Amino acid sequence: MTDEDDRYYHVDGEIVPASEATVSVDDRGFRYGDAAFETMRAYGGTVLAWDRHVERLESTCDALSLAHGLTGADLRERIDETLAANDLADAYVRLSITRGVQPGKLTPRPEVDPTVVVYAKPLPRGGLEGDSVWDEPATARTVETRRVPDEAIPTGAKTHNYLNGILARAELRDADGSVEADEALVCDLEGAVAEGATSNLFFVRDGILHTPTTEGDVLPGITRKIVLELAAEEGIPTREGEYDLADVLEADEAFLTNRTWELRPIATLDDREIGGGPVTERLSRLYDERVERSCYFSS
Amino acid sequence: MTDEDDRYYHVDGEIVPASEATVSVDDRGFRYGDAAFETMRAYGGTVLAWDRHVERLESTCDALSLAHGLTGADLRERIDETLAANDLADAYVRLSITRGVQPGKLTPRPEVDPTVVVYAKPLPRGGLEGDSVWDEPATARTVETRRVPDEAIPTGAKTHNYLNGILARAELRDADGSVEADEALVCDLEGAVAEGATSNLFFVRDGILHTPTTEGDVLPGITRKIVLELAAEEGIPTREGEYDLADVLEADEAFLTNRTWELRPIATLDDREIGGGPVTERLSRLYDERVERSCYFSS
Repeated sequence: MTDEDDRYYHVDGEIVPASEATVSVDDRGFRYGDAAFETMRAYGGTVLAWDRHVERLESTCDALSLAHGLTGADLRERIDETLAANDLADAYVRLSITRGVQPGKLTPRPEVDPTVVVYAKPLPRGGLEGDSVWDEPATARTVETRRVPDEAIPTGAKTHNYLNGILARAELRDADGSVEADEALVCDLEGAVAEGATSNLFFVRDGILHTPTTEGDVLPGITRKIVLELAAEEGIPTREGEYDLADVLEADEAFLTNRTWELRPIATLDDREIGGGPVTERLSRLYDERVERSCYFSS
Repeated sequence: MTDEDDRYYHVDGEIVPASEATVSVDDRGFRYGDAAFETMRAYGGTVLAWDRHVERLESTCDALSLAHGLTGADLRERIDETLAANDLADAYVRLSITRGVQPGKLTPRPEVDPTVVVYAKPLPRGGLEGDSVWDEPATARTVETRRVPDEAIPTGAKTHNYLNGILARAELRDADGSVEADEALVCDLEGAVAEGATSNLFFVRDGILHTPTTEGDVLPGITRKIVLELAAEEGIPTREGEYDLADVLEADEAFLTNRTWELRPIATLDDREIGGGPVTERLSRLYDERVERSCYFSS
């Protein structure tokens, strides 16, 4: 474990101390948010579901016509080097690939000299013997900001254009500046519930596990996918559909998923109490088992 | 005039050579495109319509709840210093303000230590005795990418979340990689013509000057506003409305506006010839006169 100030980053192929982890102001990642990223979690030094992250990263880069030319093995090596430099085994990991510096124009050029940045910070151990990253179940609020539609920026792309989520989160501050909730629940332009600013939504009603479909404007979260698979393996009926707020408010259980939180119950949504429950707990345990098996056991 | 490599930038309060013009990878401008910007044009050392740029910048920062705490005079001084360091009088100028580095979370904090970046590059003299930046009237093409709607990110905000424009421009490349047009014309989600990736659209039909209304998802360009004012002063009838592609294709004249191009006639739209004409030429001359009067004469 390292102090905030002694942390090392991987920037453009080199391990550098945090103070030297910079990019040119001409980098398209800075100028335009013209970059793809993945947030991952390493457990005992092993990134969970690495292949899926590589796959989604490629899907983002395809959507941006960003042919970075790097192999999954190369990216993986940079992550391993970053974890090693920071002496980390249990960590949050973020990998970004920008289109780099290109002369002058907005129109992207096919020849890319990408900038690759890897950032890692310590997290508690996960899995069966681990601690959750969050202290309490989440409070959530719906916001006015609407999800950017697929027609404007492909929904499946995870990019540095993250203002939509920031604007959603900014709505959670009340007049005196204090933050009223942990997560902003964002609807699409038609008013259907889409996702949290950094998470996917699940809820349980009458024993059925529901989550907004990725046929709508919903990021295909990797934790989301794993949870759906675990539910299917366990015989829990699942449905991916289109829901309005009332559907969620009437739920028996509700939870949010992302790489860091894993499964985090929703204590309240717009001040209405929902909470976790037996299905959430079962899935959380199955997730921990998966982590244990895929990462700690193998390492 | 300076070479590309000898150029100086203004970064976080200091004049630095291009090679040292960097920001932290933790800067929210890099991580999320969480930044406001303005592109300006200096003529004879004077930024045209500076007050309007400050006003729009504030409007962007308000939309992002980005309270940077800098005065217009401070920002102006940084621009003047950048022009002086590069020995430039006629220049393209870009000013960016990011939310800087904030610990950990996506949710923005009210206390901001902004990162301010000023970039300038030489342009030819403008005004009555000047040369246009472009060699030829523009070729334009409509694209599939739709404008991000106001409900997702406020349309009036000019931010580093510029992927929407990049995706529009990327559509202009054909299979062999060559660029088929100078500008991508983007429609809104309902199919109404909105704007170019970096420009506003005007067209003339039966002596009336038309432009898509900023009540739709259209960036309120400053050149656009000046052109509308010049037309009104000159007694040219103007209309801001909602238009479909057929309206533009049937136009007698059409042109694009932005700070750098000023007024640039549209030679072809989707291979249909339109071109400039007497109204475009008259407005271009009035614009040059305005530049001459406001900038060169006063300096």
